[in-house]
Amino acid sequence: MTDATLLDVRPLATAEVIAIGSELLGSTRLDTNSLFLSEILSSLGIVLRAKAVVGDSKRDIAAVLRGALERVDLVIMTGGLGPTDDDLTREAVSDVLGVPLIEHADLVERLEQRFARRGLKMPDVNRRQAQILRGGVIVENPNGTAPGQMFERGHQVILLLPGPPRELKAMMVELAKTALAQRSGTERLFRTSLFIVGRGESHVEEVAQPVYSKWLQQSPPIETTILAAPGQIELHLVLRSADPAAAERALGVAREQLIAALGADVFSIDGRSMEEIVGALLLERQLTVAAAESCTGGLMMSRLTDVPGSSAYVAGGVVVYSNELKTSLAGVDPALIASHGSVSEPVAMALAEGIRARTGASIGVGITGIAGPTGGTPQKPVGTVCIAVVGPESAVVKTFALFGTRTMIKFWSAQYAMNLVRRMLLGSAQEVHG
Amino acid sequence: MTDATLLDVRPLATAEVIAIGSELLGSTRLDTNSLFLSEILSSLGIVLRAKAVVGDSKRDIAAVLRGALERVDLVIMTGGLGPTDDDLTREAVSDVLGVPLIEHADLVERLEQRFARRGLKMPDVNRRQAQILRGGVIVENPNGTAPGQMFERGHQVILLLPGPPRELKAMMVELAKTALAQRSGTERLFRTSLFIVGRGESHVEEVAQPVYSKWLQQSPPIETTILAAPGQIELHLVLRSADPAAAERALGVAREQLIAALGADVFSIDGRSMEEIVGALLLERQLTVAAAESCTGGLMMSRLTDVPGSSAYVAGGVVVYSNELKTSLAGVDPALIASHGSVSEPVAMALAEGIRARTGASIGVGITGIAGPTGGTPQKPVGTVCIAVVGPESAVVKTFALFGTRTMIKFWSAQYAMNLVRRMLLGSAQEVHG
Repeated sequence: MTDATLLDVRPLATAEVIAIGSELLGSTRLDTNSLFLSEILSSLGIVLRAKAVVGDSKRDIAAVLRGALERVDLVIMTGGLGPTDDDLTREAVSDVLGVPLIEHADLVERLEQRFARRGLKMPDVNRRQAQILRGGVIVENPNGTAPGQMFERGHQVILLLPGPPRELKAMMVELAKTALAQRSGTERLFRTSLFIVGRGESHVEEVAQPVYSKWLQQSPPIETTILAAPGQIELHLVLRSADPAAAERALGVAREQLIAALGADVFSIDGRSMEEIVGALLLERQLTVAAAESCTGGLMMSRLTDVPGSSAYVAGGVVVYSNELKTSLAGVDPALIASHGSVSEPVAMALAEGIRARTGASIGVGITGIAGPTGGTPQKPVGTVCIAVVGPESAVVKTFALFGTRTMIKFWSAQYAMNLVRRMLLGSAQEVHG
Repeated sequence: MTDATLLDVRPLATAEVIAIGSELLGSTRLDTNSLFLSEILSSLGIVLRAKAVVGDSKRDIAAVLRGALERVDLVIMTGGLGPTDDDLTREAVSDVLGVPLIEHADLVERLEQRFARRGLKMPDVNRRQAQILRGGVIVENPNGTAPGQMFERGHQVILLLPGPPRELKAMMVELAKTALAQRSGTERLFRTSLFIVGRGESHVEEVAQPVYSKWLQQSPPIETTILAAPGQIELHLVLRSADPAAAERALGVAREQLIAALGADVFSIDGRSMEEIVGALLLERQLTVAAAESCTGGLMMSRLTDVPGSSAYVAGGVVVYSNELKTSLAGVDPALIASHGSVSEPVAMALAEGIRARTGASIGVGITGIAGPTGGTPQKPVGTVCIAVVGPESAVVKTFALFGTRTMIKFWSAQYAMNLVRRMLLGSAQEVHG
């Protein structure tokens, strides 16, 4: 075997991400794929050294790729793999590498079948999506028409992936288990996250900081990041190690210390959303839920039904904006609305009880509030939201004072309503922080 | 006057933004400054050709800057101007340009005064912030300690600005009125967008391409970008011109040509979402809408109520997952479900009629389908969705075959349902593309 044929097995240590698309250079859209890619690369122990966004210009794409190939082992290019004239990634890479594009007959056939299944004839432009760099490997795209491709040059790898996040994510998750896992080193990043509801960011920081600051001195150290996300405060713990068992052990101990400090406000320790957590609890206890929503306009039910299998525990519900519908669809006594106002704890309770009775669900939820931007009063400003939860054995009603835009107030209202359901299911509804 | 001293007065036409900071390469933070910079550059008629994020590495910063200087007239570097060891922007630029950094005594003094005003002694490291490229111009920072700097090389401009958005924005707004305004041409960028529903990306391309390809030959040319976004295909038109009135006229003509080709599938020409468009039509005609949603779980109502003021036209509705609730809450005849199945056009019609009757809304919408991932059959696979709209004068029902994840099928179902309402309000419900 001569040097020329020796396989270069240096692990991939550094990466650059290049997002392609003129729309990503405007003032309204960001390339968010790179956040996901950064995380998955770091789980492989590969350091993201730089990222770039270029428009749909073959010359610019080529220039940025050339620069990246001078610096890093792995270049991931996202977008520009569609069928249209301004999808130029394939051609630009072909130019830079000096490798021609070959149309794969079986890919053409698969594309045609994909269209045929929807009763459509494939437009001729879509043939371009069957062009693969000579010597490159096709990366299957289970969620779209544009296949990805992977090309190796010496120890370097160039990866072409489609831009839509859903397509890219599925493909990258698969590559991280297969081709990229084989090409990366022995150290890995290990992570765990805690999602917290019912406390503000600075209150979480106040309680958590004395706990996590000690972990920086241990070996290997655990780094902690605190992040305010819609509906939740997140604590992200990261540890770099070549020993998976020891790493998971250390993260488990750290997590327990945080849970001891933050209590039941920690609602998720595995990345699951509030709707998934509540859904799993309902399923486990074989209970169902229904909601009568006013200011959230159906958002709580919509979020609950985002979870596959939710038809097993979401009975249904009503959206009742007007006082008339609060009465006709959810059975609220008009006298109650007249005496307390539609945004009040008695009306929230009546909504919860009414929808529970009408649907036969185990748990009824009532949400009534002022999402804004108008409709507030000095007594009940925008963001005033009353939420009631009525279950088989107990009931709870609370008034929240929320801040932000209309959509933020809707989101937080749905989040707190689901959290009240969660606390009731855990038998700790009394301790909820408002 | 010799050639060497001739001032190069070519206007700045193209730009690249380089954001510096390792924290921007993680999985939680995005460089959002570039959105603001993109907008302000485009108002100056300067095209943002690419943007990059690099970590705190002098070598990487230098390499990316070198690449940018080969391509564009204006390079804006943000971040890395602080006083600490990992603030390396100044040094990297000095290396690339071959221009030394000079400590400005008056800047040192001003920094010391800034600290003194807060009763502090300036740490020695902060002297680095007083280093300016020889021949460069200081850019005042009213909101922080790190001054910016501007350096001209031939017709090119390199701009160094601090990373914190509040500091950067104030400085850039000022520069856009002064130094950059003088250096930019008289031309400005003008834009318009069309949102389309009811056709796939390649079908829009097929129809639109013969129209917009001609605009590249006209003077000034109009550039068109096609983009697949959730629930809609977008066409973005951009025109560069020194004459605002002529530009708006040309874009108006172009837009009319696309509307003539694509018809009523164009639902928005001003960036408004489907829920805003439908809401505005309902408000204008003083009509109300109610929905009985099965597979969308309340998403259509939630999206409609995201719009401020929507309580004027959203009556409310029901979420009816189970057959029992379809009957008890929306009045669907159980015999209809037994003979046609719950996912069928007759049941969609009964849902629409039932919710219209129970709420007294002008328009009733019924949505029933299979969002998946389970529940499909060979006759009615996942993604089969029946949508009915019943109004005062007409009714329409259609069956859609949708693809994608559960949340995508929910989103598209809500989008198509709102589009059917839109088409009915426009009096063109019959021509809807399925």
